[in-house]
Amino acid sequence: MPQFNNVSVVKKANVYFDGKVTSRAVILEDGTKITLGIMLPGEYEFGTAQKEIMDIQAGELSVLLPGNEEWLVITEPTKFEVPANSSFKLQIKTVTDYICSYLD
Amino acid sequence: MPQFNNVSVVKKANVYFDGKVTSRAVILEDGTKITLGIMLPGEYEFGTAQKEIMDIQAGELSVLLPGNEEWLVITEPTKFEVPANSSFKLQIKTVTDYICSYLD
Repeated sequence: MPQFNNVSVVKKANVYFDGKVTSRAVILEDGTKITLGIMLPGEYEFGTAQKEIMDIQAGELSVLLPGNEEWLVITEPTKFEVPANSSFKLQIKTVTDYICSYLD
Repeated sequence: MPQFNNVSVVKKANVYFDGKVTSRAVILEDGTKITLGIMLPGEYEFGTAQKEIMDIQAGELSVLLPGNEEWLVITEPTKFEVPANSSFKLQIKTVTDYICSYLD
C-alpha cells in the first residue's frame, strides 16, 4: 500500500465541525507538514493561510474555489489548489479521504 | 505536541460504519502496526483477531468488554485491553480520538 516513510505523526487528531472533518498532522522527512484527513457528507467552508494542494484520494464532492462562480465537481481521485489567504467551500457527497499539502 | 517519530503512514484511510469510524495505519520503527482513529457518536461492535490495547486520547464513551455484563464508562483519557478473537461494543458519546495497538 502506498505510504509515507520516515515521517512523524502527531498523536492527537485535529477535529472540526463536530468531528465531521478530522485530520492527522504528518511531518515529512524534509520538515514539510501535511495533513491526512476525512470529511463526512456535509457543507463546509475553510480558510487558508498558506497555499494548499488538496489531493483527493477517495470521495465525491464539489468545490467552490475563490474567485469562481462554478462548482468543480469531483467524482474520482484528483488534486486541486487553493490560494493562500483565501477561503473555499466544499459540498461533500460521500466520505472523502484527502491529503493536504501546504506551500509557502 | 506528542508524536510518533521515524514511522510510516499508509496514505489511504480505513473507513467503517459509513465513515463514522475511520483510522490511519502507522508502522512504528520496530515494525509494529498501530492505528490512529476517530469515532463519532453512535453504537458500534468490533471483532478482534489479535489482542488490542485501546488508548483513548479524548472522548466520552462506554465500552462493553467480552465476558462483562457492565459497561465501562470512560470520561477521561485511559486505556483498555480487548482479548484476541473476541468482540467488544462501544457507545460513543462525544468525538473520540484513539490509538489502537495490536499484540501477539
